[in-house]
Amino acid sequence: MALIVQKYGGSSVANAERINNVAKRIARTRDEGNQVVVVVSAMGDTTDELIQLAYQISEKPDNRELDVLLSTGEVVSSTLLAMALHSMGYPAISLTGAQAGIRTDSTYSRARILKVESKRVTKELEKGNIVIVAGFQGITDEMDITTLGRGGSDTTAVALAASLGAKVCQIYSDVEGVYSADPHLVPEAYHLAEIHYEEMLELATYGAKVMHPRAVELGELFNIPVLVASSFTETPGTLIHGGVSMEVRNKVRSIAHNLDVGKITVVGVPDRPGIAASIFGPLAKAGISVDTIVQNASIQGITDLTFTVVKSDLAKSMEVVEPIAKSIGARECASDDKLGAVSIIGTGMQNTPGFAARMFSTLSEKNINIQLITTSEIRITCIIDEAEVKDAVRALHRAFEIEEE
Amino acid sequence: MALIVQKYGGSSVANAERINNVAKRIARTRDEGNQVVVVVSAMGDTTDELIQLAYQISEKPDNRELDVLLSTGEVVSSTLLAMALHSMGYPAISLTGAQAGIRTDSTYSRARILKVESKRVTKELEKGNIVIVAGFQGITDEMDITTLGRGGSDTTAVALAASLGAKVCQIYSDVEGVYSADPHLVPEAYHLAEIHYEEMLELATYGAKVMHPRAVELGELFNIPVLVASSFTETPGTLIHGGVSMEVRNKVRSIAHNLDVGKITVVGVPDRPGIAASIFGPLAKAGISVDTIVQNASIQGITDLTFTVVKSDLAKSMEVVEPIAKSIGARECASDDKLGAVSIIGTGMQNTPGFAARMFSTLSEKNINIQLITTSEIRITCIIDEAEVKDAVRALHRAFEIEEE
Repeated sequence: MALIVQKYGGSSVANAERINNVAKRIARTRDEGNQVVVVVSAMGDTTDELIQLAYQISEKPDNRELDVLLSTGEVVSSTLLAMALHSMGYPAISLTGAQAGIRTDSTYSRARILKVESKRVTKELEKGNIVIVAGFQGITDEMDITTLGRGGSDTTAVALAASLGAKVCQIYSDVEGVYSADPHLVPEAYHLAEIHYEEMLELATYGAKVMHPRAVELGELFNIPVLVASSFTETPGTLIHGGVSMEVRNKVRSIAHNLDVGKITVVGVPDRPGIAASIFGPLAKAGISVDTIVQNASIQGITDLTFTVVKSDLAKSMEVVEPIAKSIGARECASDDKLGAVSIIGTGMQNTPGFAARMFSTLSEKNINIQLITTSEIRITCIIDEAEVKDAVRALHRAFEIEEE
Repeated sequence: MALIVQKYGGSSVANAERINNVAKRIARTRDEGNQVVVVVSAMGDTTDELIQLAYQISEKPDNRELDVLLSTGEVVSSTLLAMALHSMGYPAISLTGAQAGIRTDSTYSRARILKVESKRVTKELEKGNIVIVAGFQGITDEMDITTLGRGGSDTTAVALAASLGAKVCQIYSDVEGVYSADPHLVPEAYHLAEIHYEEMLELATYGAKVMHPRAVELGELFNIPVLVASSFTETPGTLIHGGVSMEVRNKVRSIAHNLDVGKITVVGVPDRPGIAASIFGPLAKAGISVDTIVQNASIQGITDLTFTVVKSDLAKSMEVVEPIAKSIGARECASDDKLGAVSIIGTGMQNTPGFAARMFSTLSEKNINIQLITTSEIRITCIIDEAEVKDAVRALHRAFEIEEE
């Protein structure tokens, strides 16, 4: 008897009919002889509605209170899913994050899981119950309710799978898994049956909205195979794991893109120690997450510093950076909010020369100007004009001859 | 510095505007130099909406799951009220029933409070916080969430007031307190400034929908003065306490009425031991709450047994009782669903003769037939035709010359 953890996203449980459909999937997994733990998100737009309610009351709702408020959304869907299983004749019990032993730090609105005390979950499994856990939430040592921020329910699921020693963690949402590129942009893009944690991590960070990187990281850390699949179809999904064969790995697996890129360049910065810290420290304090950072080689002690943020943070970032730039003697600050990113991703890339060259020449042939370049061991990303992203993705998909395995 | 516990009902927090109004009331109480603990119900019709959601999923939702589901309603309103206080500049924190230490048995949907572990509440008060507690809910020793059933939030408030040694427990809803009779029926009915626990208990049971009897009982048990008042007006409300003076007590205080009375008579019952148990045991098992029970004097070993239930339980009660009546050799079962009750209530009644006689003669003068009579030490109730209730209440209010104090 294997233990399987399943997670269902908000759109999968958006109404009574969908909840009943999800219950049928869970029942089938159980009928196949498995123990099942289910993590569930809030129904449809519940979280957004609760946030709106809070902002009707307060311009700046307290984070602790907001977390308690939002946590109710997942509690509601977990009880309804348990009821749906009951009415199909299956034993099931819902548990809140606190009851399921999801212990976190007290960073409200984006708490980190410290440990999972899975005693109650194990007890309920031993009683024969299907256990439905409210995702996205945990509890501190002081018994205060927290939420885990973006990707929270995915993280709950992987953490539970790790703690319980599950065979696999299945993440069900309204997407059918990972593709070689966005099928909306590239008609010949195809579905990937499997992908390495590292590749998925780069994909998650650089464009594909399938799963949050923190949950992927957690899966890699505890070596839990994670299946991402659709709850609306019977397609097989994509298995994220560490055992992808070298042959499959040794090439470009996927082209990712991202249209939400804002860029700030601090021009003519005196190149001396502490300059980077003086800029990025205050940005972090302002809660702005900086993505790519590039610093050009220094010429006569003067350099340019460029970084990217999501577009919605661009104005606030300029407000933070401009006075700093002035105080450190930089010439000027410039921003650009019409950018996008394209990335090629593949675990084996670092061992195979020529990937970067082919990427740049492909973009050049299309007359696409590259504004910034960043690389990791398994990814090369170019920041380009947002209007050219679509062409770039298509051209790269062809250039690397990404073919179905 | 006094400690005051306030409870606000669902209609008082039905939307953002009303929540802000309630926050202002709380702030004022705080500004007057008091420590404040607030118990709050779910917003408006939230509880009914959650119940509907459950019944969309399941014809017979599990009680444990239903309790978890319903408990979210009060959690939502408690966080919003805390946010409203924050935005007015007041320190406040919301606590779930579990966090506030409301420990109950595990009778889901109508749990009883076993104890209040108020350590966390006290800690937050000491920090200077206004403490907002989600009403209607508690937690078992196994950390399962329960709800307290009807009158649950009132009970939470009084239990907290008792545990914390509060000066007073103020119950705010959309009614302005207790009247000498229903002002809709009796134009000259007036507002009572104070009332004894016992009188309130009889009123709560026999008609007035101001406060649930279990919360009144709890107030009496711990001698906590309870103020019932409107959150929409500045009228003073009614103080329920044990110190009402003898002079005030020594008369009829209020005329209560109730239009929801169904009656079943088992006719021709052999009068032998165990008969009552054989009828009322199965009714209790079926979850039917029996109100008045009357058994006539036995004539030649044969008696009639009459009892009342709420009208919605009448059909189900007949289903339970008819086969039993047959098996014990009763002649027949009769039911009547067109009944109501009128009661006169006053703590001093038992010491003063003539109240019953005057009540019966008043009804007789109005040609109103009395079907059943029951009495307690401080109450006399007559079951009559529902169409005659209005006339009866008016006539009794005049007959007992219930005048403003």
